[in-house]
Amino acid sequence: SRRAMGRAMGLAGLLLGLVVVPAVLVSTSLRHGAPRTEAEPEPAGWELAADAVPEDSLWPLPQWVRTYPRQLQLAPSRFQLVHGAGSSAGPGCGPRRRLCFPGRYYEYMFGHSRRRTWGRRPLAARAEPELFQLQVVIEAGDPGCDRHPQVTSSEAYHLTVTEPVAILKAYEVWGALRGLETFSQLVYEDDYGSFLVNESEINDFPRFAHRGVLLDTSRHYLPLKSILTNLDAMAFNKFNVLHWHIVDDQSFPYQSIYFPELSDKGAYSSNLIYTPTDVRLVIEYARLRGIRVIPEFDTPGHTQSWGKGQKDLLTPCYSGGQPTGSFGPVNPVWNTTYDFMTKFFQEISSVFPDEFIHLGGDEVDFSCWKSNPEVKEFMKKQGFGTDYAKLESYYVQNIVDIVSSYNKGQMVWQEVFDHKVQLKPDTVVQVWMANNYAHELSSVTGAGFTTVLSAPWYLDYISYGQDWKKYYSVEPLNFPGSEKQKKLVIGGEACLWGEFVDATNLTPRLWPRASAVGERLWSSSNVTNLQDAYKRLTNHRCRML
Amino acid sequence: SRRAMGRAMGLAGLLLGLVVVPAVLVSTSLRHGAPRTEAEPEPAGWELAADAVPEDSLWPLPQWVRTYPRQLQLAPSRFQLVHGAGSSAGPGCGPRRRLCFPGRYYEYMFGHSRRRTWGRRPLAARAEPELFQLQVVIEAGDPGCDRHPQVTSSEAYHLTVTEPVAILKAYEVWGALRGLETFSQLVYEDDYGSFLVNESEINDFPRFAHRGVLLDTSRHYLPLKSILTNLDAMAFNKFNVLHWHIVDDQSFPYQSIYFPELSDKGAYSSNLIYTPTDVRLVIEYARLRGIRVIPEFDTPGHTQSWGKGQKDLLTPCYSGGQPTGSFGPVNPVWNTTYDFMTKFFQEISSVFPDEFIHLGGDEVDFSCWKSNPEVKEFMKKQGFGTDYAKLESYYVQNIVDIVSSYNKGQMVWQEVFDHKVQLKPDTVVQVWMANNYAHELSSVTGAGFTTVLSAPWYLDYISYGQDWKKYYSVEPLNFPGSEKQKKLVIGGEACLWGEFVDATNLTPRLWPRASAVGERLWSSSNVTNLQDAYKRLTNHRCRML
Repeated sequence: SRRAMGRAMGLAGLLLGLVVVPAVLVSTSLRHGAPRTEAEPEPAGWELAADAVPEDSLWPLPQWVRTYPRQLQLAPSRFQLVHGAGSSAGPGCGPRRRLCFPGRYYEYMFGHSRRRTWGRRPLAARAEPELFQLQVVIEAGDPGCDRHPQVTSSEAYHLTVTEPVAILKAYEVWGALRGLETFSQLVYEDDYGSFLVNESEINDFPRFAHRGVLLDTSRHYLPLKSILTNLDAMAFNKFNVLHWHIVDDQSFPYQSIYFPELSDKGAYSSNLIYTPTDVRLVIEYARLRGIRVIPEFDTPGHTQSWGKGQKDLLTPCYSGGQPTGSFGPVNPVWNTTYDFMTKFFQEISSVFPDEFIHLGGDEVDFSCWKSNPEVKEFMKKQGFGTDYAKLESYYVQNIVDIVSSYNKGQMVWQEVFDHKVQLKPDTVVQVWMANNYAHELSSVTGAGFTTVLSAPWYLDYISYGQDWKKYYSVEPLNFPGSEKQKKLVIGGEACLWGEFVDATNLTPRLWPRASAVGERLWSSSNVTNLQDAYKRLTNHRCRML
Repeated sequence: SRRAMGRAMGLAGLLLGLVVVPAVLVSTSLRHGAPRTEAEPEPAGWELAADAVPEDSLWPLPQWVRTYPRQLQLAPSRFQLVHGAGSSAGPGCGPRRRLCFPGRYYEYMFGHSRRRTWGRRPLAARAEPELFQLQVVIEAGDPGCDRHPQVTSSEAYHLTVTEPVAILKAYEVWGALRGLETFSQLVYEDDYGSFLVNESEINDFPRFAHRGVLLDTSRHYLPLKSILTNLDAMAFNKFNVLHWHIVDDQSFPYQSIYFPELSDKGAYSSNLIYTPTDVRLVIEYARLRGIRVIPEFDTPGHTQSWGKGQKDLLTPCYSGGQPTGSFGPVNPVWNTTYDFMTKFFQEISSVFPDEFIHLGGDEVDFSCWKSNPEVKEFMKKQGFGTDYAKLESYYVQNIVDIVSSYNKGQMVWQEVFDHKVQLKPDTVVQVWMANNYAHELSSVTGAGFTTVLSAPWYLDYISYGQDWKKYYSVEPLNFPGSEKQKKLVIGGEACLWGEFVDATNLTPRLWPRASAVGERLWSSSNVTNLQDAYKRLTNHRCRML
């Protein structure tokens, strides 16, 4: 609320600088992706109070916004979220009511004020007419309340706020969730504790289908609470993919059902794990916010922790003809490796409902493979010569085939494409190398693959000042390529690698910096004004706090 | 405790990387500032458990440490902190008992385990002899329990841990506080929930008398809780000065008794202020931890927020012969300015008990002064020509004289010295400009002034990775100068300016990075081994968490 914003003003400038939002008089205004334009001449006597500029707190900016000066009042004790006429969600949404009508939005809009101040201030004391309901209409035959979001899910919605009811129309429940977030951003509390919303019309849909945040729970374990808090923040910013980089060299916190020794021996400690219950909780919490959970089980590199609980999985390194006792990447020459992976990915395919699994495939160090006589022998037999990228491809090819057999799509880091692995046509190639990523986008899409961009959004790299502007100013389609190629860019991800991140600093390090990426991936490509973004982001941060 | 460390291992690497502390066998070991040396051959059968290397968690490293392999057991329900024979603190310390025997150290040592697990594990089940007491002996005639710490206070202590009682001797209560912190760092919890300490002897004192942390409560308001939490962290690292940069251009949160309008109009909001009660609480909380509170009221620059509540204090800026409506630094030409400052600093001198007040004096922008006809006229009259540094000096000279009349010493930023203000001999010049600070240290001490170094320790400048090593590797006396000059360096300060800091990120941004500065200012100059520091700092961070 504005009032809360006032109180938290000292906080407002964090990561954003210190300018206090200036008072702006505004009347009917239309936004169509671009900076605000006056749609009509300002009617005399209809000026809004300085603190009532509803678009100034929308984040990410919807595709099309029109707001009117007329204000409606909401009574927290009476205001209702209901099924609109003709909504498919009405009768069919019973058991999953939480998804169709998430109660958290009452709290977001009215907060503690609902209990605290309401009742003391009679609604009749104000002149504004009342908004009684938000009617949600889901138009698809099956509203999708029992399902998981997918890359093809519709997140579009249309919101009309007029007396006496607001109407939120969406084809699927995922769009309704996005519209509900937007509606809550329009509601504000004035200095007298009244809740107001301007009459408005919003037509909105995401620019990109895949809008992700990568969390790394291997370098440092993240408690469940940190992950859930982050999912809340993601929903506030209309992100829809949690890329869960769950294991890596440093630790293996995923508790496997088939291979419990992996976390027994590979986690930092027996408490620092994610049990099957924990994983289910994360997936369901995400689902209720329209967020997919794509797990990454990165192989053959980044697997030191796997070796602790699974003997004979990693490659023994040699020196002077003798094993050194150290291990390298997953051993690609033994059948037992693929037996293990077949069973392991069978489990992963069943535990994680998303249609995609991230197979990693980045940064494979060949030195250990090169030292190992069995590997060298295998190279010779396969006719790979000394090209260890071919061996890597051989390995990844096998994993791709295994995972495909479970009807799962695959995401991979860019090296897998670069090293010419035979990929399934629907594979998503994630571009992460900062050096000339535009060229890589050209190559990947030129070969017909879909791609997700992360290279400019490694948020674990920190620097002094307002670096959100740098993230904000990225244009993902700014690479040489045809229209067809551009369509293959399905989105992007803000990555927060965990070397220097844990529960003590995750939230302030990621937010609101990731919000910049969120708007870039949701809003129209012409929403690029930094001053306008600064003002809205400042308000958005206060609201998130 | 070690056990807690195990649980938090996922956190251990934060800001410090990821290496898990390796197991080291150690027996009697002597440290004399320098890396560990074996004092005696290792007695057979006396090897310690891998997790029992008491010096590996000491931070900052004491000047002289000897630890023995013999372990003593502490029973949380029985262990006592008592006055030793001959301590002056015994009878005289009644009303201020909290200072002489701060109860928080029971909590630090035994934590929740005291209530949780004790009693379930009979002490008799273990072979180790018991340590029953820590006897504190304060040797000065007046233990100082009712007083405030000063730059001349003694923080030296001598600690002997042997069966059946440990003895902590200090000249003043401030040394006892430091020794208590060290003792608490020696106590650890083993895997079975027992509390153990190795027999040890420690002789310790600070290398520098002034070891400060600067917090800025103007750019962003910091809630009281953040300030108090930071004082706790400072005590864990043996810091002894909170440099409270309380007001600046952006806001004036200090609630003045004489001039309440300063915060009424100059604070971000009426809630975001420090009342007289708040200020007293901060000062007393700090005192109980042996920490001085030096307030900074920076003038004549950095004063935009002062102008909101005090008319005719700032210089009106002109353009084309007309006032622009903007204001510059404090107006140095009017008598009313000095009347105001006289009364204002009278209040400050009485509210803040420390012997020093920081007068600021940095970064004065002359452009507004240059535009103002009255100021130009005054320059002419005074014969300053066009040298506005002379006008600045004139102003600061007046403030110095005012504050001196209240028997307060002064700290100033280096520009005040550079611009040749006539300073009192005991003025402390704070060196903050990163460019060639060694040269500035030479100049300041060459002119006979004491100095505090901050230039290499601006912790608000963040960067990726383990930047603590950079802060740790600074040698404050590494500048050209005589022995006498070196003695004039009384310490340093880690500065956390508030442009991008508020309650949401203060703690993880400042700690443990400031710990590096803490050890540099406390420990012997030859304590410079980064690997050794890394190991200890990792453990120290876990303990702080």
